[in-house]
Amino acid sequence: MQPSNRLHVPARTIMTPGPVEVDPRVLQAMSSSILGQFDPTFTSLMNETMNQLRQVLQTDNHWAFPVDGTSRAGIEAMLCSVIEEGDVVLIPSFGRFGGLLTEIAERCGAKVHLMHCEWGGVFDPKDVIAEMKKIQPKVVAMVHGDTSTGRMQPLEEIGRGCREQDILLIVDAVATVAGTKVLTDEWNIDGLITGTQKCLSVPAGMAPLTYNDRIENILLERKSIEKGLVSQDQLASNTRKIRSNYLDLSQLQDYWSPARLNHHTEATTMLYGLYEGLRLILEEGLENRFERHRLNERALIAGIEAMGLTLFGDNAYKLPTVTCVNIPEGVNGDSVRSMLLEEFGIEIASSFGPLHGKIWRIGTMGYSCQQRNVLLTLASLEAVILRHKVKLNVGEGVQAALDVYQSKERIESV
Amino acid sequence: MQPSNRLHVPARTIMTPGPVEVDPRVLQAMSSSILGQFDPTFTSLMNETMNQLRQVLQTDNHWAFPVDGTSRAGIEAMLCSVIEEGDVVLIPSFGRFGGLLTEIAERCGAKVHLMHCEWGGVFDPKDVIAEMKKIQPKVVAMVHGDTSTGRMQPLEEIGRGCREQDILLIVDAVATVAGTKVLTDEWNIDGLITGTQKCLSVPAGMAPLTYNDRIENILLERKSIEKGLVSQDQLASNTRKIRSNYLDLSQLQDYWSPARLNHHTEATTMLYGLYEGLRLILEEGLENRFERHRLNERALIAGIEAMGLTLFGDNAYKLPTVTCVNIPEGVNGDSVRSMLLEEFGIEIASSFGPLHGKIWRIGTMGYSCQQRNVLLTLASLEAVILRHKVKLNVGEGVQAALDVYQSKERIESV
Repeated sequence: MQPSNRLHVPARTIMTPGPVEVDPRVLQAMSSSILGQFDPTFTSLMNETMNQLRQVLQTDNHWAFPVDGTSRAGIEAMLCSVIEEGDVVLIPSFGRFGGLLTEIAERCGAKVHLMHCEWGGVFDPKDVIAEMKKIQPKVVAMVHGDTSTGRMQPLEEIGRGCREQDILLIVDAVATVAGTKVLTDEWNIDGLITGTQKCLSVPAGMAPLTYNDRIENILLERKSIEKGLVSQDQLASNTRKIRSNYLDLSQLQDYWSPARLNHHTEATTMLYGLYEGLRLILEEGLENRFERHRLNERALIAGIEAMGLTLFGDNAYKLPTVTCVNIPEGVNGDSVRSMLLEEFGIEIASSFGPLHGKIWRIGTMGYSCQQRNVLLTLASLEAVILRHKVKLNVGEGVQAALDVYQSKERIESV
Repeated sequence: MQPSNRLHVPARTIMTPGPVEVDPRVLQAMSSSILGQFDPTFTSLMNETMNQLRQVLQTDNHWAFPVDGTSRAGIEAMLCSVIEEGDVVLIPSFGRFGGLLTEIAERCGAKVHLMHCEWGGVFDPKDVIAEMKKIQPKVVAMVHGDTSTGRMQPLEEIGRGCREQDILLIVDAVATVAGTKVLTDEWNIDGLITGTQKCLSVPAGMAPLTYNDRIENILLERKSIEKGLVSQDQLASNTRKIRSNYLDLSQLQDYWSPARLNHHTEATTMLYGLYEGLRLILEEGLENRFERHRLNERALIAGIEAMGLTLFGDNAYKLPTVTCVNIPEGVNGDSVRSMLLEEFGIEIASSFGPLHGKIWRIGTMGYSCQQRNVLLTLASLEAVILRHKVKLNVGEGVQAALDVYQSKERIESV
């Protein structure tokens, strides 16, 4: 067997809906040496990460911490800790990640009521509220921004409806947090999950989440302490016990509380990355960050349209952090993507299921969301599409994007 | 709200059973920029990581890959993918982590038959085999090295017994892989889980595991493809579906296969670390690495005993990577540990449940397992215990350890 070579990572411009590029300052933080999980310096860092998370998630909830796994680990932790066998869960699904919520909720034993809408659109909140009234679920679980279709569901009205009917609202905000406005408390979201590898711009591997006391009350009812940590007679058996140990939020919150009750060994280096990533977000300021995401989205759209390409989906509900482009007739979308990656070192994404081969998805998230990346992507995409023998308005895409950036500069200099 | 400070991590010598220190070359690898999860450079890295894992886990199994979570995520992935409601599982438990296996297996719906032995000892394999014959479990689940008591269970005879009776053997080898001999195939282990933060000396956050076709056959029977990835009519419903989505090995193996069927977003930076950590292990050579662990263990034990302290547990079955020391009468063990950390920047561990306050646990694992660390720990521990007004054989601990290192050098120079 040949010994492996030292790791070599070539340069990439990553314009997908994640994982995205990471600020070098985050990577530097992640190269710090290890601290023990109960070292007071480390537990302070855990507390400070919770503080920062609350600000980024715009919540006063006490509980805001990462699950050590990728985004869907956080979604499963939330759903399996709340849902019990036979619970009715309403899932209005407008893309692939609504499918994932369904998949996970069913495995948790839920009776799932699905609402579908055409991929490329979102729901009228009134329809969701009417359905809630009809089936009276314990939980409504929804995606905020579904990257598979590039749509964003307005949640405020649905959140109000849930609270009025005393239904829990659980939201997958993996694609939106730190890239566009997500108001956890104001929108009456009871449980919210995000991921590190999108607009937080931290490597994949952690799923920050938050929940309020409506959810905590359920956790406390279902809680049980792990065998081997306390003597046998302190172990009350609980018939409503959460099915997972690793993803049991009632145990995880004990680990993230001053009790620091031993559970897993917190992922040291990932926590360094999350801490630093959150710090950079708060240093930039949420409003500035959202404005940066809007500006780059605007420039990208201007470039795409000026080039002669068209956008997929209902523009009124476009997810600001992902732009879906219709693949021109007769073009092999995967061949374009491969050439972009191989010749230009730039990555854009395809999509899933019914949309595979129909659209490209271009992400503008976190550290990847910068003028340089947008301009290089437009120039390269044009060259590659031309190479695939499709007529375009040559040269116009980059010019249109530059116009957006320069008119912004003109406005600011007034 | 005060803005958080830039991350600052003070220097530490970590002599616990994990997380342990990480080779700077691993941390450097982890500061590489991000690659997309389907970038051919990244998928090659995934394949090469599987190759290296097979060598470190001493197996010809095809499947050897990490779960993106800490060690117990790997344990739960293995157990929840194999165990179905009502399956009988035999767990011979000799410490806290046998308790964890029980906890997880029960949540998976297993009927668990527990065998206990006094903490500090291990099982006579004949007793385990006799119990297997009696209760005829589907699975025997055991810990190889339980760090809570510092004992290591011989597995060869139990493995042979399992194979003869067509019972699956699943082993938690989190504390032993890459620190002492673990022969997955030769010992007839069907499924084996380890963790990154111990002798692999990579930051916590991944759980490498391997399994053979006896386990794969169960996975294939229970497999189902995720909603949203294929059209609805391709989705056969499976009543034996695995309860977790995140920890479903049947889906994870599709993601780690050439099909690369989308599941989670692989934790990029952690994979860089695992790849480089495995590479350094294979560069050192497994036998050399085990010998290094034995040498430092011998020096540590010599030092501890020369100082006048005593070891906990049955020495015949001592876990080579963890040394448990009886806390001297009248000493507050946690006060000694705090002073070691605060004044000397050295961390050792306490233990759990019935052993808390009774023993200290000193790890010699991975990059932490080096002469410098052993000598500094002995010198500092002596000073701190003296400060707690306990009589010791002053100066003798470090001298005895030096004797071990120097006699080794004399032998090698002959």
